[in-house]
Amino acid sequence: MSEVDLAFDEQDLLPAVAQDAESGEVVMLAYASEEALERTRETGFAHYYSRSRDELWKKGGSSGHVQRVEEVRVDCDGDALLYLVDQEGGACHTGYRSCFHRTVDGEVVGEKVFDPDDVYE
Amino acid sequence: MSEVDLAFDEQDLLPAVAQDAESGEVVMLAYASEEALERTRETGFAHYYSRSRDELWKKGGSSGHVQRVEEVRVDCDGDALLYLVDQEGGACHTGYRSCFHRTVDGEVVGEKVFDPDDVYE
Repeated sequence: MSEVDLAFDEQDLLPAVAQDAESGEVVMLAYASEEALERTRETGFAHYYSRSRDELWKKGGSSGHVQRVEEVRVDCDGDALLYLVDQEGGACHTGYRSCFHRTVDGEVVGEKVFDPDDVYE
Repeated sequence: MSEVDLAFDEQDLLPAVAQDAESGEVVMLAYASEEALERTRETGFAHYYSRSRDELWKKGGSSGHVQRVEEVRVDCDGDALLYLVDQEGGACHTGYRSCFHRTVDGEVVGEKVFDPDDVYE
């Protein structure tokens, strides 16, 4: 499926970083199973594997905030993925463009792009 | 230590994405222990925890390819970090600027910036 050897972890997952292909903003980090990667490549939309819900998951499936994937990269060790995406709306369920919208000191540095109350019921 | 609650995993680690603060390039993904994050914030240089060597690790400690950390961000769930860095030389031990220098199809898309034979003996 991949020309590059992938080193899935003991849960058969790889961390996958999603980066906005145009702005370069890192919008989220989630995990991909082999099937999630396959679906991502087949459909052109980012899929992940939810460790808490234990299921394959299409990003934006309920919110509409999908990620069109322009390219999938893999790191030197084959144990991490980078999805270059065109992010519809915001990646974060809190309404921010990026899940990384706070510094570790708690300062908000990201941009809020939608009201979660309008999107999730 | 952090104003934001961090959700370390069962190995007491968090995935940490390093992004070039200026170019926006994602240069690597590694793991941070609480001590690695503490050292990063105290020294201003990126530290990680090596899962294979089982030790705290200063990026560039042997190669000189250090990462000056401008900001540390945390994601909405507190279970991933983003280091915004000024990368000296290249992040990848293979000589590329970024560890994510290949697509999942094996096409090389990254820039080679040093010869590993000159750096690692």
